[in-house]
Amino acid sequence: MSQRSALLLPSWRPGPVRDAVVGFLEAARDVAVVDRVAYFDNDGTLWCERPSYVQLDFFLDALRKRVEANPSSGERDEFAAVLSGDAAAIAGIGLERIALALAGLFDGLTPEEFASATRAFMATAKHNSLGRPLRSVTYQPMLELIDELRRREFTVGIVTGGGTEFVRAISDDLYRVPAELVVGTLIGYDFTRDEGDRPVIRRTSSILGAANEGATKVTNIQTQLGRRPILAAGNSGGDREMLEWALATDGPALALLINHDDAEREFQYTSKAQTLVETEPITDVGTRLGWTIVSMARDWDVVFPPESGS
Amino acid sequence: MSQRSALLLPSWRPGPVRDAVVGFLEAARDVAVVDRVAYFDNDGTLWCERPSYVQLDFFLDALRKRVEANPSSGERDEFAAVLSGDAAAIAGIGLERIALALAGLFDGLTPEEFASATRAFMATAKHNSLGRPLRSVTYQPMLELIDELRRREFTVGIVTGGGTEFVRAISDDLYRVPAELVVGTLIGYDFTRDEGDRPVIRRTSSILGAANEGATKVTNIQTQLGRRPILAAGNSGGDREMLEWALATDGPALALLINHDDAEREFQYTSKAQTLVETEPITDVGTRLGWTIVSMARDWDVVFPPESGS
Repeated sequence: MSQRSALLLPSWRPGPVRDAVVGFLEAARDVAVVDRVAYFDNDGTLWCERPSYVQLDFFLDALRKRVEANPSSGERDEFAAVLSGDAAAIAGIGLERIALALAGLFDGLTPEEFASATRAFMATAKHNSLGRPLRSVTYQPMLELIDELRRREFTVGIVTGGGTEFVRAISDDLYRVPAELVVGTLIGYDFTRDEGDRPVIRRTSSILGAANEGATKVTNIQTQLGRRPILAAGNSGGDREMLEWALATDGPALALLINHDDAEREFQYTSKAQTLVETEPITDVGTRLGWTIVSMARDWDVVFPPESGS
Repeated sequence: MSQRSALLLPSWRPGPVRDAVVGFLEAARDVAVVDRVAYFDNDGTLWCERPSYVQLDFFLDALRKRVEANPSSGERDEFAAVLSGDAAAIAGIGLERIALALAGLFDGLTPEEFASATRAFMATAKHNSLGRPLRSVTYQPMLELIDELRRREFTVGIVTGGGTEFVRAISDDLYRVPAELVVGTLIGYDFTRDEGDRPVIRRTSSILGAANEGATKVTNIQTQLGRRPILAAGNSGGDREMLEWALATDGPALALLINHDDAEREFQYTSKAQTLVETEPITDVGTRLGWTIVSMARDWDVVFPPESGS
C-alpha cells in the first residue's frame, strides 16, 4: 500500500473492507462532480443507537421535565409505559405510537425553539453506559470517511429514520452536514401569524408523509434532494432499498453496511430485513447483494472519537 | 461610492434600490455563515415568465410531439384547449388542471429520463418574441446578485411554484444551484423494481402535497431546506409569505420584489396579491410592508445576459 493511501482513513484497519472503500474513492475520481453523492443513515451508522436512540433519550428527558412540572401529564398510556420502562407495555403500544406521542411534547414550538431545546440537551447529556457525552458517541471511522469524501468533492447527506429537525439541530456540529442535506421523518408545520401580523410557523404533532424508512428513503431522496447516491451507508433493514439503489447506478458505487459485532467496544446485535417471504439478517441480505459489510470488531481500529474537553 | 462598491453588481444602476441591496450585503458580514441564506423565486424573478412559463413551453413541445406520433392523444379536453390556444377554453378548464394533465405526459419516466428530456428541450428552444434562446432569458442583474451572495458565503436556493424536477434539471447550468437547494411543486414517485430486481423510481401524475405557492413556500422551505432566509426575492402574490417571513427575522434582512415595468426590454404587467379582504397589486403590498421594489426599467442597466454562442 502506498504511503499516500496509508494516510487515508487512519482508523480503518487494513484488509478487504478498507481496500473496497479506498478502491471506491479512487474509482470515483472518474465520476463527474455533480454525481459524487453519498448518503448516510444516522442511528447505528454514524453514531451509537444502543441501548436507546439518542432522540428517544432527548424526548424522555423532555417528558420527565414535563411530568416534574405537572405530574398528571405522565398519565397518558404512552408516557406511563415509557416512564416505567415496562418493556411489555412499550411493545404493546408500539414504539411508533410512543415516538409520535413524545414528539407531541413539542407541539406549537417554532423550528428555532425546537433546535434550541435539542442543542441544550446535547450540550450536557451523557450516554447511559459508554461513559461519554452523547455528542461524542459518533463513530470516528465514519467521520474520517465523510471528511475524505468531502475532500474529494462529494456532496454528503444524512438520510435517517429519525426526526429530520432533531438531526438538523446537530448535523452541522457533528458532521458538518447542512440542514438541507438532512432527510428524515418530518413533522408538519402550521403557518400562522403573530400579534404583529408577521409569519410564524409552529410544529404540529402529525407526521408529513410516511416514516423515512425502506423504499420511502429512496423516494424521499429523490423528492427532497434530487440526486441519487453512488455511496450509501446503513446498518438496518430500513436502509436496504437505499443501499440497493446506490449499487444500481452505472459506474463506481459502494453500499456500506455497518455490522454491530463489537460487544466489547460498542454493542452486538443484528438487524433483520423484512422481505416478502422471510425475515433474514440484514448482513445476509448484504452479502447476497454484494454490499461491503463493515465489521466494527475487525475493521475499525478505534470506534469513538477522542473526547474533547467537556 | 467607493471604487470597491462600484465593482459590485455592475448591471444594477446607482440609486436607492442598488443602495439597499449593497447595504444589505455589507450588513450581512455580521451574520453567522450558517444564517446567510437567500432564496429566489424562479419564474419572473430569475428569468422571464412571459408570454408563457418556460416549463409550459416545454410541456407543450412534448404534447405536440405526442400528438404528431398519435393524433388521437390530443383529443383530451385539457390538451385540445391548450393546443388550440383558445384563451376562453383554457380559462374554463384552469391552468392548474391543464398543467397537471401536461405533467402526466411524463408519467412513468425515471428522474434521469425526465431531466434528459428537459435538457434536450432547453438546449435549442427559443423565446417566442425576445429572439434569444430560452436558456438565456435569465436576468443578468439577478445572476450577478446570486454570484455576489455566494462570494459572501451565502447558501442560495430556488423556491419556485414551478415543477421541482424541471427546475433542478437546469438549475446547476443556469444558476449553479444544486438539486437539493431547489424546492418547487413536486410530482410523486412510485418505487418499483426492474427485471433484475433492482430498485427503480418512476414519476406518477399526482402532486405531492400542495402547489408550492404562498404559505406553502414557507412551510416547504422549513421541511425541505431547514433554514429560513434573510433574503427572499419574488415577483408575485405567490411569493408574499416568503418575503414577509424573510423580513420577520432579527438582524439584517432583505425582501426584493421584481416589478415588471419594462415593456421595452421585457414585459409590463403587475401581479395581484390575494388577501382576505381585497386583491391589491403586489407592488402596493410590498411598499406597505417595507420591501425593496426593483423597477426593471429604472434599476437595471441591462436585463438579459450577453448571449453565448449558440
